Amino acid sequence: MNSLHFIKKLLITTCFFVISSSVSFSQTEQWDIYEVVLKAKTNKNPYTEVNLSATFQYKNRQIEVSGFYDGEENYKIRFMPDKTGEWIYLTKSNVKALDGKKGKFTCVSASPNNHGPVKVKETFQFEYTDGTPYYPVGTTSYAWTSMSDELINQTIETLSNNAFNKIRMCVFPKIYSTYIRTDPQYYPFEGTKEDGWNYDQFNPKFFQHLERCIDSLRALNIEADLILFHPYDFGTWGFDRMPDEVNDRYLRYIIARLGSYRNIWWSLCNEFEIMKSMDMDDWDRLFKITMEEDPYMHLRSIHNAIQWYDYTKPWVTHLSLQTIELLNIQKWRNEFQKPVVIDECVYEGNIPTDWGNLTGEEMLERFWVTYTRGGYATHGETYLNADTVLWWSKGGKLYGKSPERIDFMRSIMEDAPADGVVPYESAWNKSTYLYKGDEYFLHYFGNAQQVAASLDLPEDKKYTAEIIDTWNMTITKAEGVYSGKAFVDLPQKPYLALRVRAVKE
Amino acid sequence: MNSLHFIKKLLITTCFFVISSSVSFSQTEQWDIYEVVLKAKTNKNPYTEVNLSATFQYKNRQIEVSGFYDGEENYKIRFMPDKTGEWIYLTKSNVKALDGKKGKFTCVSASPNNHGPVKVKETFQFEYTDGTPYYPVGTTSYAWTSMSDELINQTIETLSNNAFNKIRMCVFPKIYSTYIRTDPQYYPFEGTKEDGWNYDQFNPKFFQHLERCIDSLRALNIEADLILFHPYDFGTWGFDRMPDEVNDRYLRYIIARLGSYRNIWWSLCNEFEIMKSMDMDDWDRLFKITMEEDPYMHLRSIHNAIQWYDYTKPWVTHLSLQTIELLNIQKWRNEFQKPVVIDECVYEGNIPTDWGNLTGEEMLERFWVTYTRGGYATHGETYLNADTVLWWSKGGKLYGKSPERIDFMRSIMEDAPADGVVPYESAWNKSTYLYKGDEYFLHYFGNAQQVAASLDLPEDKKYTAEIIDTWNMTITKAEGVYSGKAFVDLPQKPYLALRVRAVKE
Repeated sequence: MNSLHFIKKLLITTCFFVISSSVSFSQTEQWDIYEVVLKAKTNKNPYTEVNLSATFQYKNRQIEVSGFYDGEENYKIRFMPDKTGEWIYLTKSNVKALDGKKGKFTCVSASPNNHGPVKVKETFQFEYTDGTPYYPVGTTSYAWTSMSDELINQTIETLSNNAFNKIRMCVFPKIYSTYIRTDPQYYPFEGTKEDGWNYDQFNPKFFQHLERCIDSLRALNIEADLILFHPYDFGTWGFDRMPDEVNDRYLRYIIARLGSYRNIWWSLCNEFEIMKSMDMDDWDRLFKITMEEDPYMHLRSIHNAIQWYDYTKPWVTHLSLQTIELLNIQKWRNEFQKPVVIDECVYEGNIPTDWGNLTGEEMLERFWVTYTRGGYATHGETYLNADTVLWWSKGGKLYGKSPERIDFMRSIMEDAPADGVVPYESAWNKSTYLYKGDEYFLHYFGNAQQVAASLDLPEDKKYTAEIIDTWNMTITKAEGVYSGKAFVDLPQKPYLALRVRAVKE
Repeated sequence: MNSLHFIKKLLITTCFFVISSSVSFSQTEQWDIYEVVLKAKTNKNPYTEVNLSATFQYKNRQIEVSGFYDGEENYKIRFMPDKTGEWIYLTKSNVKALDGKKGKFTCVSASPNNHGPVKVKETFQFEYTDGTPYYPVGTTSYAWTSMSDELINQTIETLSNNAFNKIRMCVFPKIYSTYIRTDPQYYPFEGTKEDGWNYDQFNPKFFQHLERCIDSLRALNIEADLILFHPYDFGTWGFDRMPDEVNDRYLRYIIARLGSYRNIWWSLCNEFEIMKSMDMDDWDRLFKITMEEDPYMHLRSIHNAIQWYDYTKPWVTHLSLQTIELLNIQKWRNEFQKPVVIDECVYEGNIPTDWGNLTGEEMLERFWVTYTRGGYATHGETYLNADTVLWWSKGGKLYGKSPERIDFMRSIMEDAPADGVVPYESAWNKSTYLYKGDEYFLHYFGNAQQVAASLDLPEDKKYTAEIIDTWNMTITKAEGVYSGKAFVDLPQKPYLALRVRAVKE
């Protein structure tokens, strides 16, 4: 990355501007969006010829953020304050009407459901900025924002009734087999798919629509794992094969618009290696632009089909994998020293295609195995229905058996020690077991049917044990207390877990 | 290996001995054992000081085989003829009474159930020497020959009622947790475990007993995958920590005794890397001895716990793996260019230990996945019962749900084109699919529930399809004939396969 640019953003400077009495004044809460709107009429192309930024200052700390043109002579600068108290700003532009505008606002405490952006916690986990643990329980609906308002509303309704706290979603519309070929309500550029796009002119309506969708997710505390590019266009709209300079401009523009949303994660691409118009240098360049443009350092990753991106690169915050080799999660933790998110391990559903017909049992099994090996899985659903509205691409309703059980699993995750659990290191077979010191153990037994669980606990402590039926969503306390080498009888059926906790003295 | 020794065995020579009229005469069938018994009384140690071998000759082809002492002044030379017709032999010894003995016998055609030893066929498969396909469907009972005669008979009875055509079994007795700690009926050396063994004196009774067991298997056409060393002794008997020269002598002795059994496979060790008294050089040396001593070139491998032996080494005929990473089978085929046998992928059962509590469904699933990725799986069973007789170590009875379904699977294997099927190359997800040219396709769907199978067949041929329920052991013909891109409706439940065959013109 451009280090000067970086320094500009982060350095504490001792000299700043003086607030005059003519500035606008308002307030916003911590990690919400403070938006500056400026009107300007100019002969310049507002997307390619107008520069606009603002420097926001809290005490002596300055943060520079880019503005953007939102159509109808509106220029906007959005900012997400991370500290309560008084902030001031000063704009800078090559257009006089936008330049040198000052303002201030008060940042008040976050409301109870607002915990700030999610970030990496202690190498392998996540937390909200306010310290609240965040356990990713994701789902996938690639093109839900490209659908009709009716379907979008149904998707939001479905999400509000389920456990998912992250959704993988594309900016651009998607084509996949007969399952989705829907033209979106809006396009990101002026023009038409038939006559071509004017890449110099974004269409603000497209982005305003996307923002409304991300707003709805934010209200539900759902992270938008926003996929910035993807290959499933095949030239239909051509967003998979734009010139480099257009890709770069699009990326800067969307970051200027969306970086201030606390629930944004940047996913550079879905199945990136299928996107033949890009090579590794392109992805590296786009990652660097993302880091330069986003002053909030939202989470950043990229998703593979089969070939992996080099997740050791410093701009990747976490692994965002497509894989069913869940046995390797412990190994990947050790190798990459980053959180491991299995963003596709095949979906629950009934389509003929081999990535979309898991039973509910197997989808849930993969969630549990992933979690108890120290990673986080992402859900997707592909049940055929009369209208061919498959959740995985279009949203709508969920029909599967796994979502409510994933919800139950999330409650188990939330009930684990908040300062983190670690997986058993070995990657062999049933090494699906999390622990914290000698106080908490969570074993998952999966496709087994053993008569008992074998425990090897400290001799000098007492423990209680609970048998968790992950499929039937029950928690049954085992009789008695346990110490040292001990056995806990199990009901000899698959999909059980065992939670063992030290008795508080 | 010693190349002179090798040449001695295999070279066709033009000069051999003349048969006198005084030789003994008998007959044996092809791939059965022709045994020469010679009496001799000597002051030498018959195991360490007496050399005995015989050269068997068919036309101008000569094969040298070692003899052995079988107690009670009996010296024996066993030979497995591979050609029908007249064979002659001449013995060689440093004991006069054993030296220069000549004989001849007639080798007659094999009886219908005798197909000869199993060998590798076309890189990845197996066949009997007579060309009959051999599809390994193995089971595991490590120490069944160390049990009481009553239990041994029960094991043989069980094997006679099941599909298994290979059994993994140890020469030496075994200790494992509380599941097996049984002293065997006989020991391989003179002496006692308390006072130590006389490693210079084998105990023929031990080997005679083992041979009776292997005879019983041979009568059932079951290959004895004979494990020559293993670590689960822990010094109890000490057979896991014998001096190198004893290991070598034991190996030569057992090959002299058992090499002529057509149903022998040599498995150098079980979980070899756990055996701390041996290093890689030891295993290499023992493999070389095995090749030198065995004129029949029986199949040879070695079995890992976690660390792998280098299966590229030329003396390894096939991979004999412990793994549950079945996704990698296609990759290993390509890497090693040898048959892939998954000799442990965890067992059906209900013990607390994580390698012994699979459901029957999961054991069967692993058989099908292994087969349809181009490998062969091996069964094991560990159900607790009143007498702690777990099949995996002691033999006895089978209680599980997988054996009869493995039997059903074997019938599907046998029904595939006899000249071989190959797996789909890719190793992703449901790439569990075998085919032969454009005439035969076998898809396995496992933990899926799709509404239909999607086929991509040649346009110019017609195909029939059969839905195989691997769990319920049914084969249902799908209506109609199929060509080109086609769908076959499926009953939306797990553990289905689809067999598609070209209609014969």
